[in-house]
Amino acid sequence: MELSWRRQRLTTRHRFATSQGGSDERETIVVRLEHEGVCGLGEIVPSQLYGQTLESSESALRRAGPMIGDDPYAIGPAVDRLIEGMDDQRAAIAGFDSALHDWVAKRWGVPVWRLLGLSPARTRTTFTIGVAEPDEIRTKVREALADGYDALKVKIGVEHDRETLAIIREVFDGPLLMDANAAWEPGQAAERIRGVAEFRPALIEQPLRREYWRDNAALRELGVAPIFVDESCERPADVVRLRGLVDGINIKFNKCGGIREALRMIAIARAQGMRVMLGCFVSSSLAIAPPLAIATLADFADLDGHLLLREDPFEGIARDGGAIALGEAPGLGIRERA
Amino acid sequence: MELSWRRQRLTTRHRFATSQGGSDERETIVVRLEHEGVCGLGEIVPSQLYGQTLESSESALRRAGPMIGDDPYAIGPAVDRLIEGMDDQRAAIAGFDSALHDWVAKRWGVPVWRLLGLSPARTRTTFTIGVAEPDEIRTKVREALADGYDALKVKIGVEHDRETLAIIREVFDGPLLMDANAAWEPGQAAERIRGVAEFRPALIEQPLRREYWRDNAALRELGVAPIFVDESCERPADVVRLRGLVDGINIKFNKCGGIREALRMIAIARAQGMRVMLGCFVSSSLAIAPPLAIATLADFADLDGHLLLREDPFEGIARDGGAIALGEAPGLGIRERA
Repeated sequence: MELSWRRQRLTTRHRFATSQGGSDERETIVVRLEHEGVCGLGEIVPSQLYGQTLESSESALRRAGPMIGDDPYAIGPAVDRLIEGMDDQRAAIAGFDSALHDWVAKRWGVPVWRLLGLSPARTRTTFTIGVAEPDEIRTKVREALADGYDALKVKIGVEHDRETLAIIREVFDGPLLMDANAAWEPGQAAERIRGVAEFRPALIEQPLRREYWRDNAALRELGVAPIFVDESCERPADVVRLRGLVDGINIKFNKCGGIREALRMIAIARAQGMRVMLGCFVSSSLAIAPPLAIATLADFADLDGHLLLREDPFEGIARDGGAIALGEAPGLGIRERA
Repeated sequence: MELSWRRQRLTTRHRFATSQGGSDERETIVVRLEHEGVCGLGEIVPSQLYGQTLESSESALRRAGPMIGDDPYAIGPAVDRLIEGMDDQRAAIAGFDSALHDWVAKRWGVPVWRLLGLSPARTRTTFTIGVAEPDEIRTKVREALADGYDALKVKIGVEHDRETLAIIREVFDGPLLMDANAAWEPGQAAERIRGVAEFRPALIEQPLRREYWRDNAALRELGVAPIFVDESCERPADVVRLRGLVDGINIKFNKCGGIREALRMIAIARAQGMRVMLGCFVSSSLAIAPPLAIATLADFADLDGHLLLREDPFEGIARDGGAIALGEAPGLGIRERA
């Protein structure tokens, strides 16, 4: 097996921001696993929030060979060894997990979603409106609706939330997910949530700072909307400790390490009566395809990372309004744009 | 897709008994799923303990067609629909789950364990010594050791436990799992467990009656051996409620419904820090192959159901002393004995 990688620079159409800051540029890493004439692809999308950088991911790539082993079909044991060996580099692990799934499915000539015993990979994705000035919000929402998206996620947790939400609700009556990105202290969250209730949130995501995960239980009782966590829930063990405290979790592959770990988190969440969202970071299509392959298992998909780009270096995800899909092409079905 | 089935009668070499009774005859159901010239096989092993009979399983088979659907590759959604439609007939669901996995893997020309992204299916199985008179215990243990088994499970929970255990420990120094099959009341279990401590149990399985699952926590604190549950743990939701109360669980496919549900239970158990055993009932090789395909994920395998038979109508599981394995043959690798 031969492993190689390169950085790729991505630019967003608009500057993209959350309550924690923003930018219009991002670099990710494209991983290639070549063996027996077949090439498996994966994308590493590091997030500093989780101790991941381009450098730490490249260091992980250099150390990974012996952990992946010499049997590319044995994805489960390979991912388990990677977790054991580099537990804090889950973005890199997700890149390997993607490349291994892509490789096996291409080798057998089947799509990854079928390899996993699932239905065809189709879902409705929310389109995300970042934190911005009122005029820009207006432009972004109009563009999104013109593009056919019928469910929106809006980043809140700043001073002018109510103004932003009023602008959106003037023109959009559909499902509106509100993501505070850990903006609030336990003492102020209830008031802030009540303050956005009139704008009919489909759910409120990560209202509290990461470490206050226990305090979500009280926010559920407000009855305003289901409470989901994102930053407070990275991995399977987190889902266990959140039992009874939240309505749902946002699973992202750079937090958990890819398809194998995500399937475990979904199993735990379902058995605990929780709902599941699949999320992403700004990335190319290559990092969106793995969560999209299992999106039929989720209640909400927020898989728009590639749709925020000015130019996507990869292609293969079909979009029809707010619906995105992978086809019957073998593997993840993602290829470099010609 | 064409579904057909027939009953098969099995006879054990010795009368096989637990603290709950025994017999030397058993009937199971062989399921065949034929499609595009490929035949997927499964075995239904009903247990009255879980509300399953040959008749209820055959009734489930007659109703299952529309729930399985018309895409045999989409095993996940098919199993989910079966669970929704016949939640109490998990033995029948396990038969379908087996036939679907066998079909897909044969269609692609790969073993089921590889389809699941796992390492080659090899494990050490315990050999089970049922409840019997001292002379018969002596004979059974001698036979087992002569056959090369190097880990034993013994059924306890009757009056002469200590006599049985002393006979075994005279000739066997290796790992000895003790299974009480729900024999004891909470008020007596601690004393009984202390009474077998000198015979060095590798673990104590299901000491308490099913409904007293909460009381296992106190038995762990005796420090005699890890406490596992079997009858108190059927499905994913049971694993969740047992968090912190037991050291491990015994997963059996006729309790949970097959590979898909077992993988979920293992994910939950691991995230909760629990250990995992894969167990079985007396059956032919056909019902042993599905748990064996995933046995590399377990800490203990008690997959000897077919080894207790006078004649096994199926073949395909290799045995070398206490080690059993599935080979590289496509699907489950199980075929009718010529």
